[in-house]
Amino acid sequence: MTQCLLLDAGSGGRASQRLVAQCFVRRFANPLLERMDDAALLAGLDGPLAMSTDSYTVTPLFFPGGSIGTLAVHGTVNDVTMLGARPHYLSCAFILEEGLPLETLEKIADDMAAAAREADVLIVTGDTKVVPRGACDKIFINTTGIGSVFADPVPSGAAARPGDAVLVSGAVGDHGLTVMACREDLSFLSDVRSDSAPLNHMIARVLDAAGKVHVLRDPTRGGLATTLNEIAEQSGVSILLDEAAVPVHENVRNGCSFLGLDPLYLANEGKCICILPEDRAAAALDAMRASPYGKEAARIGTVQEGRPQVSLQTRIGGQRLLGMLEGAQLPRIC
Amino acid sequence: MTQCLLLDAGSGGRASQRLVAQCFVRRFANPLLERMDDAALLAGLDGPLAMSTDSYTVTPLFFPGGSIGTLAVHGTVNDVTMLGARPHYLSCAFILEEGLPLETLEKIADDMAAAAREADVLIVTGDTKVVPRGACDKIFINTTGIGSVFADPVPSGAAARPGDAVLVSGAVGDHGLTVMACREDLSFLSDVRSDSAPLNHMIARVLDAAGKVHVLRDPTRGGLATTLNEIAEQSGVSILLDEAAVPVHENVRNGCSFLGLDPLYLANEGKCICILPEDRAAAALDAMRASPYGKEAARIGTVQEGRPQVSLQTRIGGQRLLGMLEGAQLPRIC
Repeated sequence: MTQCLLLDAGSGGRASQRLVAQCFVRRFANPLLERMDDAALLAGLDGPLAMSTDSYTVTPLFFPGGSIGTLAVHGTVNDVTMLGARPHYLSCAFILEEGLPLETLEKIADDMAAAAREADVLIVTGDTKVVPRGACDKIFINTTGIGSVFADPVPSGAAARPGDAVLVSGAVGDHGLTVMACREDLSFLSDVRSDSAPLNHMIARVLDAAGKVHVLRDPTRGGLATTLNEIAEQSGVSILLDEAAVPVHENVRNGCSFLGLDPLYLANEGKCICILPEDRAAAALDAMRASPYGKEAARIGTVQEGRPQVSLQTRIGGQRLLGMLEGAQLPRIC
Repeated sequence: MTQCLLLDAGSGGRASQRLVAQCFVRRFANPLLERMDDAALLAGLDGPLAMSTDSYTVTPLFFPGGSIGTLAVHGTVNDVTMLGARPHYLSCAFILEEGLPLETLEKIADDMAAAAREADVLIVTGDTKVVPRGACDKIFINTTGIGSVFADPVPSGAAARPGDAVLVSGAVGDHGLTVMACREDLSFLSDVRSDSAPLNHMIARVLDAAGKVHVLRDPTRGGLATTLNEIAEQSGVSILLDEAAVPVHENVRNGCSFLGLDPLYLANEGKCICILPEDRAAAALDAMRASPYGKEAARIGTVQEGRPQVSLQTRIGGQRLLGMLEGAQLPRIC
């Protein structure tokens, strides 16, 4: 018989203790978590700190290439990483719907534990709320990460400079299209897979190899086009993209073309944009390509003086403006 | 006309930017938040770090004495504080239901901003997700806090020692009964108020005055009785409570008696338990009573050798065991 979550498990009493012990503590096992005080006691971190938070509400919970559990670790690890920081610690907070099969929760916790191990971060503190049936959709997870910033200068969306090279660490659009394909049960897209991945080890090597990086950003919700627009606005520069250079997997390109979607606006969960001085670009690309998550890294554009905007040099030689995402291509993508 | 939240506002595009700018950035205004990168860049903190996370799902959203917004700040500030730390930074992540009136969101953000100002913490990074109507109940908030630990020794639930005095910073049961009264529309309880409050300034003075504190805990979900049971188990000690000494407001006592509830198991959101050597108890009590949130502080019991359990010395001279909360008195209390 399937065991399902009871409302009691969120009460803060004995039932909560049992749930936390059974599902989380032994999977995320580390001495910091096991203290079980109101807050985790952590060794001080060197240098400035990076802190980032994200809530994950993706549906479906499991999809090719990942799950809400892998996203919850990778997404926050990557956001901390984008500040030129080494992520060390994650908190994780669950909002669970009464009646959720415990097996589902355990699979998600397994995914989180494996993702945390690969990224070499510790889940040090947590929270579990259970809400009555109908008050949330199955499971929402928040993770918040902290890390120590080691990059100098610290990368920022406001630091792109005319003349800089624009790199992306691999093909875009896979995550967004995968979630959509699962949700709509589009069988002709059965071979697309989310790119959900932790980028911290790769970025540490890129920063080491390049020495100086102006901007690091992961193009999640809103995709590559929206994230580049944000950077253009924050930095007050124009960005020229070369359409032919942007890596897009063939199945994603075909799927998008069939569905009338633009891969440049689809979410990614294991890619980063790196903007840096022209003379460091080759070293950064080499470092990306040496990582399992950066094999398809490419130089895709150049930063220019001019109005804050992103233009696309198309395959047929024209140029068009690439705006920021206006509506929602797809809710609950991460 | 009431403006309501559209699904677009969670897309990561232009509509998300507008929502974040309109509702959050100007209210939580500080230069760290305004950088708007993937993670916040924070000055390093001295000493070991304390990190704590909580998701808030309380219903109703507003109640006498507070709201989901005040809880989201006070709850996490207090959890960080309980490690003998000064809370410095909060992240905050919203999961919002499509159709939520923007006015509601703005009132909640106002409450958060005011609570953060009083507690002297900065909201430095955030996240906003919007889920389709029916996928969550109005609004859930996660806050995660970090602070620098300055207490030496660091208080821990495992550090209670036989002979220690047990203090509580004020009357218990107010928050739990208030939420219940609102939800069930119990008009004879119209004068109860949540105790939602930030305890960090008071605790800093207590630690300073007492020099040495073994345990600090805030008795939230599960109430005083459950939290003391956790401490008894973690420390391997027996705790003897004096029923007559536990402060309970008269309206709470009457309401509980009418409804068949026990105030010792009701949630508090502005109280702490402090366990410390007998000879420091008077100084700690004085420091609590000097704070606006500790005027009714009292010594309520003693730590003893023996089986890990909590016993209540009743008003009529008997003794009974006070177990841990088994079921759920009330879901979605915080």
